[in-house]
Amino acid sequence: MKTIKIGILGCGIVGSGVARILIEKQALLESRIGARLNLKYVADLDTTTDRGVAFGEGVFITDANTVLNDPDIDIVVETIGGKGIAKQFMLKALENGKHVVTANKALLASFGNLLVKTAMEHQVDIGFEASTGGCMPVIKTLRESLVGNRIEGITGILNGTCNYILTKMSNESCSFDKALAEAQALGFAEADPFLDVEGFDSAHKLAILNALAYGMDINLDDIHVEGITKITPMDIEFAKEFGYTIKLLAISKNSATEVEARVHPAMIPNRNPLSHVEGSMNAVTIDGDATGQTMLYGHGAGMMPTASAVISDIADIARNIMTGARHRVPILGCPQTNIRPIPVLPLSQISTPYYFRFEAADQPGVLSKISGILGECGISIKIVHQKGRRTNGTVPIIMITHLAKEENAQKALKEISTLDSIMNQPVVIRIEETDN
Amino acid sequence: MKTIKIGILGCGIVGSGVARILIEKQALLESRIGARLNLKYVADLDTTTDRGVAFGEGVFITDANTVLNDPDIDIVVETIGGKGIAKQFMLKALENGKHVVTANKALLASFGNLLVKTAMEHQVDIGFEASTGGCMPVIKTLRESLVGNRIEGITGILNGTCNYILTKMSNESCSFDKALAEAQALGFAEADPFLDVEGFDSAHKLAILNALAYGMDINLDDIHVEGITKITPMDIEFAKEFGYTIKLLAISKNSATEVEARVHPAMIPNRNPLSHVEGSMNAVTIDGDATGQTMLYGHGAGMMPTASAVISDIADIARNIMTGARHRVPILGCPQTNIRPIPVLPLSQISTPYYFRFEAADQPGVLSKISGILGECGISIKIVHQKGRRTNGTVPIIMITHLAKEENAQKALKEISTLDSIMNQPVVIRIEETDN
Repeated sequence: MKTIKIGILGCGIVGSGVARILIEKQALLESRIGARLNLKYVADLDTTTDRGVAFGEGVFITDANTVLNDPDIDIVVETIGGKGIAKQFMLKALENGKHVVTANKALLASFGNLLVKTAMEHQVDIGFEASTGGCMPVIKTLRESLVGNRIEGITGILNGTCNYILTKMSNESCSFDKALAEAQALGFAEADPFLDVEGFDSAHKLAILNALAYGMDINLDDIHVEGITKITPMDIEFAKEFGYTIKLLAISKNSATEVEARVHPAMIPNRNPLSHVEGSMNAVTIDGDATGQTMLYGHGAGMMPTASAVISDIADIARNIMTGARHRVPILGCPQTNIRPIPVLPLSQISTPYYFRFEAADQPGVLSKISGILGECGISIKIVHQKGRRTNGTVPIIMITHLAKEENAQKALKEISTLDSIMNQPVVIRIEETDN
Repeated sequence: MKTIKIGILGCGIVGSGVARILIEKQALLESRIGARLNLKYVADLDTTTDRGVAFGEGVFITDANTVLNDPDIDIVVETIGGKGIAKQFMLKALENGKHVVTANKALLASFGNLLVKTAMEHQVDIGFEASTGGCMPVIKTLRESLVGNRIEGITGILNGTCNYILTKMSNESCSFDKALAEAQALGFAEADPFLDVEGFDSAHKLAILNALAYGMDINLDDIHVEGITKITPMDIEFAKEFGYTIKLLAISKNSATEVEARVHPAMIPNRNPLSHVEGSMNAVTIDGDATGQTMLYGHGAGMMPTASAVISDIADIARNIMTGARHRVPILGCPQTNIRPIPVLPLSQISTPYYFRFEAADQPGVLSKISGILGECGISIKIVHQKGRRTNGTVPIIMITHLAKEENAQKALKEISTLDSIMNQPVVIRIEETDN
C-alpha cells in the first residue's frame, strides 16, 4: 500500500486536531482512501504544551526546515496562521515540490495569487478547504459541484464570532460590548477580536470564494468592509418588528462585467435561510443559474471541524498522488490562463434597500424635512415608523427604503445629519432582500 | 485540447437539462475543465416533443444501442429512469467500458451493488450525485469532504413533493388530499404520487446515502418506510403548539455494530435547522464525529438543478480521463473490499420519543386507563394535553413521551386501542430531538 508522508507546521489548535485525526483515525482513512497517511513530522517551537495527542518517537520537532527539506514529505500542512513566517514556509514548501494544505485565509486573501502561481510553477497543489467556512465544503462545492453553473452570487455568514455576538444581542437585548465579553469568556472570540468584529476575517474568506466563483484573481483590497461594533440592541429590535434579522454578511454578486463584493451588517428577511443560522454557526448561500439557491451550513471554526476540512484536502491530494493526477482540479477552479482580473464595483454604485434610523428632536416638521431630502436624492421610502421611545427628548424615526443607490443614500444622509433637529449620526443598515 | 464524448439516454426533463448545459455552456465548461465536452448523441424514442435545445446535425437519435456500441463514447448519461430498460442499458454501457452518470435512485437503491460490481470489473466509474438531493452535493460531501469523520447519523428532507405538501398543510391548515391536488396542479407532484408520498423515493435515497456514510452495501429492503398520507392538519396544529414541525424525514444512525434506517413523518423542534426547510426544498444534516452537524440545502429536483448535479459528475469523470485517474474515488466511498453488510436494526428495537393522539370518549377514567397501560409498558409520559376540541362527543388526548422503545410503544398502542372509550386508531408520530 502506498504511503503518503505528511508534515505539519504549527501545532496550535488546528494543527493538533489534524494530528489527532491522522493518528487516531489512521485505519479509517486507510480503509477509505486506500493509502496510508503517515504523519512524519509535527514542527512547533512550543515544546511544553500538552496537545493531547500521542506522537510517535521523533515526530514532534522544533525545526520547520526539517519538514521543508525532507524529500520524503509529500504534503506540508501549514497551520501556523498569519502572514509572516507562514508565508515564507509555504513558499518554500511549494518551491521544494511539496503540496500544501492550509487553513490560512489571511495569507491566501493577501498573497493567494503569488502562492497559486508558485504552486503551478512547481506542479504542486494547494488545498484550502479549511480556510473558509470551517468544515462546510464550500471550496469543493464551488470548484467542483457547481462547475456547470454561472455563479450569480454568494451570501455568507462566515465569521462565527460575529454571529455569536449578534445572536446573543438579539436573544438577550444586550449591548455589543457585553456580548463580546461573554464570547471571549466562552472562547468564541479571541482576546484581540479586531479581525473578526471589524469584518476583515469575513472579507478574507469572501476574496477566496469570489476567485473560485467568478474565475477572477484573489482581490481583497477592493472589498468594502464594515464590522458589527456599531450595531445596537435598538436596531436589532426594530429589525425584528419589520421581520428582519441582522447578520454580518459577506456578499458578492456577479454582474455582466463587474463583481459586487462587500462585508457589512445587513438585515435579512426571515424567509432567507441565513436568518435561522444562530450562535457560532456559519452558512453560505450560493446562487447558481442552474441550481438556484443552495446553502451549506456548519461549524465555521473550532479544532475538529477545521481539522476535518484539512483532512479532506489531504485525502484529495493523496488520491491525486496515488493516481498520478496532479492539478486534476485547478487550484482556483479554472486553469490560470483563464483567470481574469474582474473589476469590483465601487460601493457608491451598488443599489440596495436601506434601513435608516434617525434620532430626531420631538418637534413638528422633522419628518417632512427628512423625507424631502430623501426625495430630492431620488430615494423612495417604503416604510416609515415613528415610535414613542424617547431618549433624552428625541424620538427614533425609522425608515425603510426601496432600492436606492449607495451614493444617493450617502448624499442624503450627509445632508440630513446637518439638520438642527437631528441628533447624532443616522444609523444605516443595508437590507438584503434577494432570495430565491 | 482533449475532447470527451458524451451520449445521453433518455431526453425527458433531466436529460434535456443536461443537453442544454452541455450545448449552451460548452465554452464555460471548457474554460473550467480544460477539456471539450462533446455531446455526440441524445437517444430517445420520442422524436416529436420540443426540448427547447438546439441539437446539432445527427445528435438526436432513437436507437440507444448506437450510443452503447460507439467506441468513441466515453460517458453515458442515463436519464431514462425506472428499473426496466434503464438497468439493461446501464449494465451494457458499463460492460462496454463506458463511464455512466445517472440520476436514477430507484435503480441504484435496488441494483446498486450489482452496478458497482460491474463498473469495478470493467474499470469504469458511476457518477450519481443527481440521484439524491438534486443539486445539493451530498454524494461528494459524504464521499470526499467528510473522509476524516466517522459518520454518526444522517437526517434528510429528501422528497420535495412531500415537503411541499406538508408545508402547505401547515401554512393553510388544509387536508393532505387538497395539498396533494394543488401540488399536482403546480407540477410539484406526479400524476401518480405513490413513490413520493408513501416515502419510497426518500428510502431509495437513504439507501444510497447509508452506503456512502457507513461503508455498507446498498440496502433498501431493511429500511422501514412510512409516508405522509395519514398526517392531518390537527396533528400539525398540535405539533406547532409544542414547538414542533412535522417533516417527512429519512433518518439513519450509526450504532456500534448496526445502523438504524427509517423513513417516516417526524416532529422536529424549531431549533433543528431542518424545521425551516419549506416548500419543495430539500436539505440533509450529516453528523460527523469531527465536524459536528453540517447541513446542505437546495432544490432536490427539477430540470436544471438535477442537470447541474449530472454535469458535476461528468466533469469529475472528464477530469479523471484527462489525468488518467480511474477510480480515483471509489464509487461507494471506500474500496469494494472494505464494504461490509452492516445489519439494519429492526424498527421494534429503536428508541425515540413519541407523540400520541387518542380520540377518547369524553367520560371519566379514560386518562387513567391510557396512562396505566403506558406505565405498564415502561413508557414514561413527558406532556399530557387535553383540549376541549370535541368531535362527535370525543376529545383528543395528546401525549408526548420520553424516550421509549418502539416495541413497547406498539404494544401499548395495541392495548389502548382495544379500550371501549377509545375511538379510531391512535395517531403515532415519532419525535426527532437529536440535534447538535
